Amino acid sequence: MTSTPDVGAWLDTRRREVDEALARCLPSPPACPDRVAEAMRYSLFAGGKRLRPILALAAAEAVAQHDRGSPDAARALALPAACAIELIHTYSLVHDDLPAMDDDTLRRGRPTNHVVFGEGLAILAGDALLTEAFALLAREPADDGRIADLAARKLRTIAVVADAAGACGMVGGQAIDLDAAGRGASFDADGLRAMHAKKTGALIRAAAATGAIMAGADAPALDAIAKYSAELGLAFQIVDDILDVEGASADLGKTAGKDAAAGKPTYPAVYGLDASRRLAAECVARALAALDAAAIAGQLPAIAGWVIERTS
Amino acid sequence: MTSTPDVGAWLDTRRREVDEALARCLPSPPACPDRVAEAMRYSLFAGGKRLRPILALAAAEAVAQHDRGSPDAARALALPAACAIELIHTYSLVHDDLPAMDDDTLRRGRPTNHVVFGEGLAILAGDALLTEAFALLAREPADDGRIADLAARKLRTIAVVADAAGACGMVGGQAIDLDAAGRGASFDADGLRAMHAKKTGALIRAAAATGAIMAGADAPALDAIAKYSAELGLAFQIVDDILDVEGASADLGKTAGKDAAAGKPTYPAVYGLDASRRLAAECVARALAALDAAAIAGQLPAIAGWVIERTS
Repeated sequence: MTSTPDVGAWLDTRRREVDEALARCLPSPPACPDRVAEAMRYSLFAGGKRLRPILALAAAEAVAQHDRGSPDAARALALPAACAIELIHTYSLVHDDLPAMDDDTLRRGRPTNHVVFGEGLAILAGDALLTEAFALLAREPADDGRIADLAARKLRTIAVVADAAGACGMVGGQAIDLDAAGRGASFDADGLRAMHAKKTGALIRAAAATGAIMAGADAPALDAIAKYSAELGLAFQIVDDILDVEGASADLGKTAGKDAAAGKPTYPAVYGLDASRRLAAECVARALAALDAAAIAGQLPAIAGWVIERTS
Repeated sequence: MTSTPDVGAWLDTRRREVDEALARCLPSPPACPDRVAEAMRYSLFAGGKRLRPILALAAAEAVAQHDRGSPDAARALALPAACAIELIHTYSLVHDDLPAMDDDTLRRGRPTNHVVFGEGLAILAGDALLTEAFALLAREPADDGRIADLAARKLRTIAVVADAAGACGMVGGQAIDLDAAGRGASFDADGLRAMHAKKTGALIRAAAATGAIMAGADAPALDAIAKYSAELGLAFQIVDDILDVEGASADLGKTAGKDAAAGKPTYPAVYGLDASRRLAAECVARALAALDAAAIAGQLPAIAGWVIERTS
């Protein structure tokens, strides 16, 4: 964290809000069996960065500031979508870590879900996290009649989130990655970008888009935020790959160098470390330019700085 | 099929409509990677009975007949929900068949998804089927302005479906079943009923409820259909257990006697075969009484007959 103190405080407040909202939205016993609730909670509160929900809240706030609306009200409208996307992100980690997929035993410094709860329950906990995301999106925010098109915004959000998470988005990206690993195949630069655009990019873009949609963004604002988040998602992935090469396992909370050891395609492997760093910086520059052109700001530029400067 | 010729024709027509709509809603290459699309299609078009979508369409039609509306229009409103629920039912079969769960290699007479595509892709295909269900529910039917509260009906449907499929519903039921199998534990009669009410009952109830909601059912009609479908779901499960004992593998398309061999709790094991048959008939009688009391009919009574008389 080399961001300014103000951004740091803003991020901390948002993280706290997201964590509180996530705790409220999780199903609990007796309606939900104990072990499923426990397995869901285990991975959801494992110290994630909350990048995606923060992006949703920041996009909503930036739209409100641009439209001279209330940032607080805009964030409140976007909070359920922010949480839903974190539920989906968490499910994807639980399933990706399974022995039949990436076979990871360590995540965020702790044993992965299936190591603790067993494979069957880990699959079910992932399924449940994904499903609860849509229950939350359908219910919240409740319609109190103050926003005429609230139901339409919610349906649009659900469609955007489902498309990003589904077979043409995140699940598709993981399938491409799995297939390549299974065949011992590697990607060229274009293939690598296309895979990541689905696997990690789609949900990051959806986070920013749904924040903007829930805040009532017009088409130019939505377009600027879409460009920003596409560049941000790519920068995030490049930095992830760099950290996998450079970072210590203790910082990362996962096994460093694992991707390279598994022969997985990474940006440093394709471009080298220096060029990878340059590529990430160029992505952020384009992200900021897209915001500037539409006079959208808020905390979005600072979040781009946070993504590229992070060490874990 | 011992139903009357008319009901048989009605069922065939509905199945064809559902199959066509399902084929249209599946993602396809190039946006969706080939193998994921193929794995989704493999299990979705494996000759399922389409009980859940048929129930959704029958509930919508019955509501329209009760309200002197158009059965065709009501079914068209309910068709996306009918398909979404079949997508979810299919995903649940793919995941339940996995080695970490029920470890089944045969389903509907064909090798299970993970046997053909591998465990990793089977997990992803299930995830994608679940996710596409919500994309479909959010988008369709498109709002042409003719039904003032269509967006509200769709959001309510999404919430009902997500609750039925999630940790307090179907996923929770599978977790209870998995936990009992893992501990070698057996259920008493109440435990068995509670487990099935979640594992298979929740989605069957949701199918009927969403059909009714999309058709604009009032509270008394919704209530009658809820009672009907709760009884029907239980009857369906009892008959399933009876068929597992009595049926030949060829008829069932899965390994007969497998539940009993695995020490899984079944109705015949707890009550015996004769009492199980009687219990199923009593469920159907209560289902029909609930419909009668609210003057709801359409094809719903005939579907109850089909469920209890089926041989596979």
